[in-house]
Amino acid sequence: MKTEDFRHHAHELVDWIADYLEHADRYPVCSRSRPGDLLAALPASPPEEPEPMADVLADFRRDVLPGITHWNHPRFFAYFPANNSGPSILGEMLSAGLGVNGMLWQTSPAATELEQRTLEWLAQLVGLPAGFHGVIHDTASTATFCALVCARERTTGFAANAEGLGAATAATRGPLRVYASREAHSSVLKGARLAGFGAANVVSVAIDAQRRLDPADLERLIAADRAAGKAPCAVVATVGTTGCTAVDPLASIGPLARRHGLWLHVDAALAGAAAILPSMRWLLDGVEHADSLVFNPHKWLLVNFDCSAFYVRDPDHLQRAMAIHPEYLRTTRDAEVVNYMDWGLQLGRRFRALKLWFVLRTYGARQLRAFVAAHLELAQEFAGWVEATSDWELLAPVPLNTVCFRWRPAGVVDEARLNELNAALMARVNAEGTVYLTHTKLDDVTTLRLAVGQRATTREHVQQAWAALQAAARDIAEGEHS
Amino acid sequence: MKTEDFRHHAHELVDWIADYLEHADRYPVCSRSRPGDLLAALPASPPEEPEPMADVLADFRRDVLPGITHWNHPRFFAYFPANNSGPSILGEMLSAGLGVNGMLWQTSPAATELEQRTLEWLAQLVGLPAGFHGVIHDTASTATFCALVCARERTTGFAANAEGLGAATAATRGPLRVYASREAHSSVLKGARLAGFGAANVVSVAIDAQRRLDPADLERLIAADRAAGKAPCAVVATVGTTGCTAVDPLASIGPLARRHGLWLHVDAALAGAAAILPSMRWLLDGVEHADSLVFNPHKWLLVNFDCSAFYVRDPDHLQRAMAIHPEYLRTTRDAEVVNYMDWGLQLGRRFRALKLWFVLRTYGARQLRAFVAAHLELAQEFAGWVEATSDWELLAPVPLNTVCFRWRPAGVVDEARLNELNAALMARVNAEGTVYLTHTKLDDVTTLRLAVGQRATTREHVQQAWAALQAAARDIAEGEHS
Repeated sequence: MKTEDFRHHAHELVDWIADYLEHADRYPVCSRSRPGDLLAALPASPPEEPEPMADVLADFRRDVLPGITHWNHPRFFAYFPANNSGPSILGEMLSAGLGVNGMLWQTSPAATELEQRTLEWLAQLVGLPAGFHGVIHDTASTATFCALVCARERTTGFAANAEGLGAATAATRGPLRVYASREAHSSVLKGARLAGFGAANVVSVAIDAQRRLDPADLERLIAADRAAGKAPCAVVATVGTTGCTAVDPLASIGPLARRHGLWLHVDAALAGAAAILPSMRWLLDGVEHADSLVFNPHKWLLVNFDCSAFYVRDPDHLQRAMAIHPEYLRTTRDAEVVNYMDWGLQLGRRFRALKLWFVLRTYGARQLRAFVAAHLELAQEFAGWVEATSDWELLAPVPLNTVCFRWRPAGVVDEARLNELNAALMARVNAEGTVYLTHTKLDDVTTLRLAVGQRATTREHVQQAWAALQAAARDIAEGEHS
Repeated sequence: MKTEDFRHHAHELVDWIADYLEHADRYPVCSRSRPGDLLAALPASPPEEPEPMADVLADFRRDVLPGITHWNHPRFFAYFPANNSGPSILGEMLSAGLGVNGMLWQTSPAATELEQRTLEWLAQLVGLPAGFHGVIHDTASTATFCALVCARERTTGFAANAEGLGAATAATRGPLRVYASREAHSSVLKGARLAGFGAANVVSVAIDAQRRLDPADLERLIAADRAAGKAPCAVVATVGTTGCTAVDPLASIGPLARRHGLWLHVDAALAGAAAILPSMRWLLDGVEHADSLVFNPHKWLLVNFDCSAFYVRDPDHLQRAMAIHPEYLRTTRDAEVVNYMDWGLQLGRRFRALKLWFVLRTYGARQLRAFVAAHLELAQEFAGWVEATSDWELLAPVPLNTVCFRWRPAGVVDEARLNELNAALMARVNAEGTVYLTHTKLDDVTTLRLAVGQRATTREHVQQAWAALQAAARDIAEGEHS
């Protein structure tokens, strides 16, 4: 592609993106595509001859765009936020233009040093105590996996890395055990499986009425495992569970983990961002006991996916668990610099600190706090509406941005029936296209979730969600009675 | 940031990027930063108040840009190519603007289906036989790790995932063994460590004179391991090693792997792209025996980092090894669609197929072939110059884009001295800033590598590299004699 063609189409795209940032709300939130729609529109084989970019962009608008679910739509209330912002998109553009691979300090010193500094800033913003060292990972799944590998190597004295987990656990005389509440994210189980712990060694800790990990049960489980010859290794505490944003009590779990020699990993993927508010610092009370922590600026801090901040207490330990030094990756600077390839799974690394830097500087701490605070308020407000309305109920406390609730029409008491009705309600609302929200199960109860966190979401959008839910409930109720 | 401000700065950045694409050669290739330069320029704390984007971009130019090593400079000959292109940058821009997370089909059907189709196209382009199913991973390190987990689970009948590798290897009655030549990439050792195999169970297979894995030695090692009660599990064959682009003989390794029940993973991270040329299809001869293969369009196919194409024969096996299905990630479509979160480590997924689609369509197969063919020719030409010049020698065959060579001034026979001289030569050339190249060791010989593969690299740039090397050699020789 000639530079002038790039320039032309890039300017065109900028205008398209700017319009999209302004008007994403013109689209149905959740794509209405049926399986195979786009596949049917795409040729089975690649073109032999070059095609004009203008044609490709036209095909994008015609064939691809209807298959997009609009995560940055102001009425996207599903899953978790994955918000972006103008400065972050600028950072992605520039990163793509430079095309840098920051695997080593030498392969772009600025990529490494900007990452070091912006992660120091981020640690200050959320009030991490001194002594945590940060690196950008792609996702919390990767970070949690790396934390579990660190735990594995600490418990086995690096024997798993050296001799394999089979030989290492022959020495510990029992399998390594990982503890997490049953509300913990699926990435804990996945990471433990990938790292060779085995699903059977991921121990489900009881939860209290607010779905927080119960430290007393954790202590009992550890004792029982020790008595049975098993080797307690790590505990993952969740600050803001995916299902209902429960906050495990770090201040109780921390000393317990330390006493038993467990690696404490804190999964604050979503909720970490909220700790930029002084009023929410309690979320991380006790984090001084943690060995590692992950939170995702790409969820709720206006930074494009992917940008997951992984912090460890002991970077030497992390590097010893991860580093491989073939000759072709050695440089004369290795003793004096950080080579981030040694801080995670991947060798190659995008220049992701750029977008984080752009966001932190152009918003400033003050605006970021205001942004998160507004979402917390909207969640409270929505929860209030649910509570105040007959036929609706809250299903969990609302400490953060996510409201768990359901429709409970008068007279319906059968739980299976309530589950059906709420599944039908959600399907109807999502198909209608005004809002998009998703579900979970709390115990066996089908639970609707409204997660507030998109860049452009305002009170009006939350009101629209509430109206859409009530209308759908009315329609279903009327359909039943007719 | 107001939309109009985004629009303004994005247009400004587009012009900057377009100029950069045209004139990256105005910068020294390798950054001249010293450790701490950028850190010293950045405040210790984040700003409390918002700062104008114009200030941030000015700081980028003043403080960050000097710390960039220009991977897309036409005289970047280091490591491996990580080329980008106009259409790919457009794809990254659009992907950032949409801010989609393609973890599930439902969370953007188009992201999933465009990925399916473009990976089918890519498979056709490089001549993969039918029956391979593709997914985009971030890096080959991640793909190779996932391949090793698949191997582990196949050998243990999913007992490692279920019970842990300790219990599983108690059942296999011996550690799982992974085979690769000693020229294999460091990601094999890293992946095997992370997956719990242990470094001691990564078996180094002998190489032939061309540094290709020796299948006879592989067979001997497997037999010896079986005799010793160990459990052969996987072999990683490299098509285009990182050091010197040696090509392991898949056609011999494949049947052997099958006979012994080993998972065959093919690491064609760099060289896979070359198989788009009919004349280079021999690279993948025997790939029909492979269980998995990875190659990186983000290296040598004009697609921005990251975009690593991971292919498996048996996607059900991959998904069984990777998938976790908590309630909050279930959708009503799960039985009829691909949910790519189940095809790898990460849950969250960027919309990377967009840039791949843009590149494949706007270049077309014909231009992509011409692009790669030109690099192969330039490497041959450079190799010819080295061979034809006294005081210089080739150190390995040149089947692909990378020339391994050294300076061997007349009269110097001591190998340690030659190593020193070549290290000094490389340091001098890189410091001078015209070109950037890196080294490896082949056996104990310090080896200079010239890897051709950037978008804008022409014969003239390779000539400049050769001239810079010869000038540096003269300078060193004169310095010695004065």
